[in-house]
Amino acid sequence: MVKNIKLVLAYDGSKFSGWQSQENKRTVQGCLEDAVEKVTGRKSRIVCAGRTDAGVHAYGQVANFLTISRILGHALVYHLNKYLDDDILIISSEEVDLDFHARFSAHKKKYRYVVFNDKLMYPTENNYAGYCREKLDLERMKEAALYLLGKHDFKAFMKYDKPVNTVRNIESIDIYKDGPRVIFEFSGESFLYNQVRIMVGTLTNIGRGLWSVERMKDILDSRDRLKAGMTYPAGGLYLLDISY
Amino acid sequence: MVKNIKLVLAYDGSKFSGWQSQENKRTVQGCLEDAVEKVTGRKSRIVCAGRTDAGVHAYGQVANFLTISRILGHALVYHLNKYLDDDILIISSEEVDLDFHARFSAHKKKYRYVVFNDKLMYPTENNYAGYCREKLDLERMKEAALYLLGKHDFKAFMKYDKPVNTVRNIESIDIYKDGPRVIFEFSGESFLYNQVRIMVGTLTNIGRGLWSVERMKDILDSRDRLKAGMTYPAGGLYLLDISY
Repeated sequence: MVKNIKLVLAYDGSKFSGWQSQENKRTVQGCLEDAVEKVTGRKSRIVCAGRTDAGVHAYGQVANFLTISRILGHALVYHLNKYLDDDILIISSEEVDLDFHARFSAHKKKYRYVVFNDKLMYPTENNYAGYCREKLDLERMKEAALYLLGKHDFKAFMKYDKPVNTVRNIESIDIYKDGPRVIFEFSGESFLYNQVRIMVGTLTNIGRGLWSVERMKDILDSRDRLKAGMTYPAGGLYLLDISY
Repeated sequence: MVKNIKLVLAYDGSKFSGWQSQENKRTVQGCLEDAVEKVTGRKSRIVCAGRTDAGVHAYGQVANFLTISRILGHALVYHLNKYLDDDILIISSEEVDLDFHARFSAHKKKYRYVVFNDKLMYPTENNYAGYCREKLDLERMKEAALYLLGKHDFKAFMKYDKPVNTVRNIESIDIYKDGPRVIFEFSGESFLYNQVRIMVGTLTNIGRGLWSVERMKDILDSRDRLKAGMTYPAGGLYLLDISY
């Protein structure tokens, strides 16, 4: 009997070449597929909700795979963790309907971006936050973020100029302080490649006072990547949660 | 003219085999001495205020070295940072009196220990916090910490049973919450080997309700390492500040 197993997992992206399997690279998918093969005795292809780049972290990534193993779905969490290094943690496992697909069934994704905002960033933060030395004005950034909310063509906020549909719907944006850190949280059905990191690079230019709040609207309307801010580093990005 | 240079520095201890130079190991002292040699053209011996173990971090380590280099003391910070990997950061450099010694001149050291206290610890925390799954009662730990304050024989809280003077004076202990983390801060003139990590292992046993508050006094009086709690992991320990 084929079973479909859903996993929720967390990982530290620092020492992975991202999610997707690549020859001779350590990837999250590669490590997971190896662990599944060790536990079930057979190779399975694992798909995830949101493929993360090298350096990007996850607290609530979701993945699924098909298996004929007799191990109960909720017991797999223990067996898999035994074969995983301590920078990946399976949080839960369960058997789900055969038509569940980690990516295609997802309704909403939530990402967090952490910007360390102080005179000095300690080396312990290097892989876990982006950095902005100039004091960020949260009110200005919240105002600018209103232009991003809702359904727009986000072509200006995508890495590649690829012929894809660049319309996306951002459901919520939260910006708040946590000690020396400024936290950005974005929810939406899906995001373009590097969209969150480019939105943060643009918002921080406004928060620093380098650009006006209204410039966000011009950038959005321009559909021109060169008008937006820099792509903030991968280490500050966290895939928080996937809703189904 | 010989100059004495004082450095304040921060580092991420995760990828260092501690402070002290060791053959074929990457150490903070080794990396610093290499950088000083590249900048000044000569080898210098660098001493620090508190030698940290493998995995222990520093936000305010202090070090000093003698040099005949003509580079101005306050300019060395720029030159040294150029030759250091991004897990060490020189925060400041200055020329000081020749009789200044980073270790012997220190009056007070402050250490922080971070315990992640939640149902689940994300892999991104592994190298930066100790872990306690059971909810910690701060009031109980603060009460127990009162037994540790002041001048005592801390033999029960030292790693080795070495014939050294084990009397130390703890000037302050702060325990507070920061989101899912419980932060412990200890100040004193000096600490025994592993003392902070063993005190945290003992305090958390009391905070979890495993041991009574009063047991702290019995442990202290026993002068027996086996009576105290476990040595909490190196990654949760931060050398915060040295006072002169």
